[in-house]
Amino acid sequence: MSVKEAKDRIAEILGNRLAATRAVRAEHARNEAHFPEAMPDAVAFVKTTQEVSQVLAVCHEEACPVTAWAAGTALEGQHLPTRGGLVLNMMAMNAVKAVSPEDMDAVVQPGVTREQLNEDLRATGLFFSVDPGANASMGGMAATRASGTTALRYGTMRDNVSALEVVLADGRIIRTGTRARKSSAGYDLTGAFIGSEGTLGVITQLTVKLHGVPEAISAASCAFASVADAVQAVVTTIQMGIPIARMELLDTGYIEALNVRFGLQLPDTPHLFLEFHGSDDSVREQAETVGTIVADCNGTNFFWKTRAEDRNALWQARHGAYEAMGAMHPGRRSVVTDICVPISHLPDMIEAARSDIDGSTIPGAIIGHVGDGNFHAQLMVQDGNMEDLKIAKNLANRMAQRALDVGGTISGEHGIGQGKRDLMEAEHGAAWDVMGEMKHMFDPRGILNPGKLIRD
Amino acid sequence: MSVKEAKDRIAEILGNRLAATRAVRAEHARNEAHFPEAMPDAVAFVKTTQEVSQVLAVCHEEACPVTAWAAGTALEGQHLPTRGGLVLNMMAMNAVKAVSPEDMDAVVQPGVTREQLNEDLRATGLFFSVDPGANASMGGMAATRASGTTALRYGTMRDNVSALEVVLADGRIIRTGTRARKSSAGYDLTGAFIGSEGTLGVITQLTVKLHGVPEAISAASCAFASVADAVQAVVTTIQMGIPIARMELLDTGYIEALNVRFGLQLPDTPHLFLEFHGSDDSVREQAETVGTIVADCNGTNFFWKTRAEDRNALWQARHGAYEAMGAMHPGRRSVVTDICVPISHLPDMIEAARSDIDGSTIPGAIIGHVGDGNFHAQLMVQDGNMEDLKIAKNLANRMAQRALDVGGTISGEHGIGQGKRDLMEAEHGAAWDVMGEMKHMFDPRGILNPGKLIRD
Repeated sequence: MSVKEAKDRIAEILGNRLAATRAVRAEHARNEAHFPEAMPDAVAFVKTTQEVSQVLAVCHEEACPVTAWAAGTALEGQHLPTRGGLVLNMMAMNAVKAVSPEDMDAVVQPGVTREQLNEDLRATGLFFSVDPGANASMGGMAATRASGTTALRYGTMRDNVSALEVVLADGRIIRTGTRARKSSAGYDLTGAFIGSEGTLGVITQLTVKLHGVPEAISAASCAFASVADAVQAVVTTIQMGIPIARMELLDTGYIEALNVRFGLQLPDTPHLFLEFHGSDDSVREQAETVGTIVADCNGTNFFWKTRAEDRNALWQARHGAYEAMGAMHPGRRSVVTDICVPISHLPDMIEAARSDIDGSTIPGAIIGHVGDGNFHAQLMVQDGNMEDLKIAKNLANRMAQRALDVGGTISGEHGIGQGKRDLMEAEHGAAWDVMGEMKHMFDPRGILNPGKLIRD
Repeated sequence: MSVKEAKDRIAEILGNRLAATRAVRAEHARNEAHFPEAMPDAVAFVKTTQEVSQVLAVCHEEACPVTAWAAGTALEGQHLPTRGGLVLNMMAMNAVKAVSPEDMDAVVQPGVTREQLNEDLRATGLFFSVDPGANASMGGMAATRASGTTALRYGTMRDNVSALEVVLADGRIIRTGTRARKSSAGYDLTGAFIGSEGTLGVITQLTVKLHGVPEAISAASCAFASVADAVQAVVTTIQMGIPIARMELLDTGYIEALNVRFGLQLPDTPHLFLEFHGSDDSVREQAETVGTIVADCNGTNFFWKTRAEDRNALWQARHGAYEAMGAMHPGRRSVVTDICVPISHLPDMIEAARSDIDGSTIPGAIIGHVGDGNFHAQLMVQDGNMEDLKIAKNLANRMAQRALDVGGTISGEHGIGQGKRDLMEAEHGAAWDVMGEMKHMFDPRGILNPGKLIRD
């Protein structure tokens, strides 16, 4: 019973699609965030559910760790094989297997990326709404319970996945959920796997909901003298129940970075980026109402982007914000915080975060899906400087603790992975132990993505 | 280790709030559907979470069955103590503990009914949207994953509960979820308890989402020559993405029953009852579009209900449909089916159900939240006639099997309870076994609502 025996047995199944060269292993040791590299013993490039099942059955018997890997864009080190063993590279399972325009759903394999899916949907008048920024894989997005800029209107992965095919730790293949819009038929196993970060099973197929491309879309940016004013505009908009599609805050640090990288020429002050979806009339109505709210909050420079290319440029810049901050701070890596709070507490939370960063020795900026009460601080630590990392983690912990104090969560959308396990007990108390019991039930030998989400 | 010892020990905790008189036990043996009466050994009228915890700890030690009971409106016999033991009457835990208009949420105890909550919210401009018809309890609605007429626009209990307090089988008290609008912090335990029908734990507190009362509401009824025409109007409306709030089908049988009971004077043909929510302009726009669709589908008698009292009369009639059918068929009880299918299959499903009923010897009518693809047949069986019951169950099974054949579910909103366990394997396959494993993990001695949802 060993990793070596597992490798030998899996090589018999996959042939040369089991790779153990240093180069391939090193490719699967990296992450975009600050987590140390972690080398797997081998990488399995699987192509079918059946193969995933056979591979997991072997790993289960041999007690070999298995970490699923797709686009590799996770921000809490979820996809790193911290205990070695096998990485399961899912990117060859990348077929869009069915699209039903009548029922507004699609069946996809886990290695399909969200951009690939939306490209495939172009002729149907439908789109897949969840948009975490990175061109993540559908499997990874489900496993992380991802959301992003459009969750405000269309929901998170929890709301947009109706069924899954999952391979359990021992190789059993199950199907959860149906294509019906709702169901009361038993425990919500689909929901149990969404957000489980590959610790309960490996997702091999997803049925996802699609939305109609709105008749009218309009986007806007507007500038504020202070973050407090911008956040007040957000809180008022949400409390009025306006069905706005996107509502993103970028503080001055990000605007400076975007101006440099994307040549945006925005004033160096906090901004909101907004988007409205609906019929021509309803978009106009929403936009007018929000325009009034913005003006009441001393917002200025309200610029409409009615042409598709201007809108795309705005959201491309928004999605490039993480990299733009990196480019502003060469030689530094990012520690990204991710709290989400009840909307009435958002102003205080952001102000406290800003003040904490200003009082520290490391640079950082704040950005967020503020309509959901979710925001991030991107803290820039000198690569390899453990003191910087300690300061950043301390800032992150303070933000998380404040979120918990007001009934919020330590992670709005990035998940727990390696980075936030320290905070799980504070958020969940005894319920974290129940998660551990659930993990043990699904994966009694602890082979699935060990070292993540649950207590060791 | 026995039920008797459990009773003695619980009497020490609750005093005269543990009742074992025949009258009280008989009150907790009944249901509105066709399930046989089931007498508990005693009924515990609990008042606090702490008491629920103490009682469950005793039942766990004594291996005494415990079935939670609130409004008693379940339609699949979920609340009947089929194995005897203790009924936990939750109706004294009926406080609305907090309402936050800013964050649009409320904290309630499980015995609060939906009408009570909405009464409490009247001054806030907010409402709780889930509306299964019956004045069910919030705890029961969560346990059943209830939905109803407004799920089309506002979602089911799965979408409207953000956090729970739950007492586990062994008496441990846990909290799941937070007040944030979204979270990626670990397994979705809230989702695990919603729809678990009291088999995994007892819900003692819920944090629920509220919605703003829309600026404008308008309702309408319209008549169709055939069910097929009515359903075609539904399918078109949904596929066009119109954010309609309610879209209910009633076939001729129901219209006859409502005309008798509520003096509605509608033509004796299939009808849609509709409701639009939004701003004045958006409601007008939605209504115009749907009006055109209805006309294209040969809809007639399009009657607007703009005054609140006319709207209320319409929905009161809709909510009274179940009783109205009962009144049309004295001496008979109801077997209610509850499939939900992808919307494109709705016309075929309803036609096949209608034709099955017409070919049988028992009367029945069809009604449904058709915008979600969910409909019910209310089949009227002679009280005590086992042959009738067999015919009804056979009809129900055929409908369920057809739903599964097109990727639908055996229960849209009523749950599994005792009534649908036979169909669980057909819907879930090996995943039903996984539900059983989950049940065993949460409740190793099998005390919580035994005989429901999972395999024995």
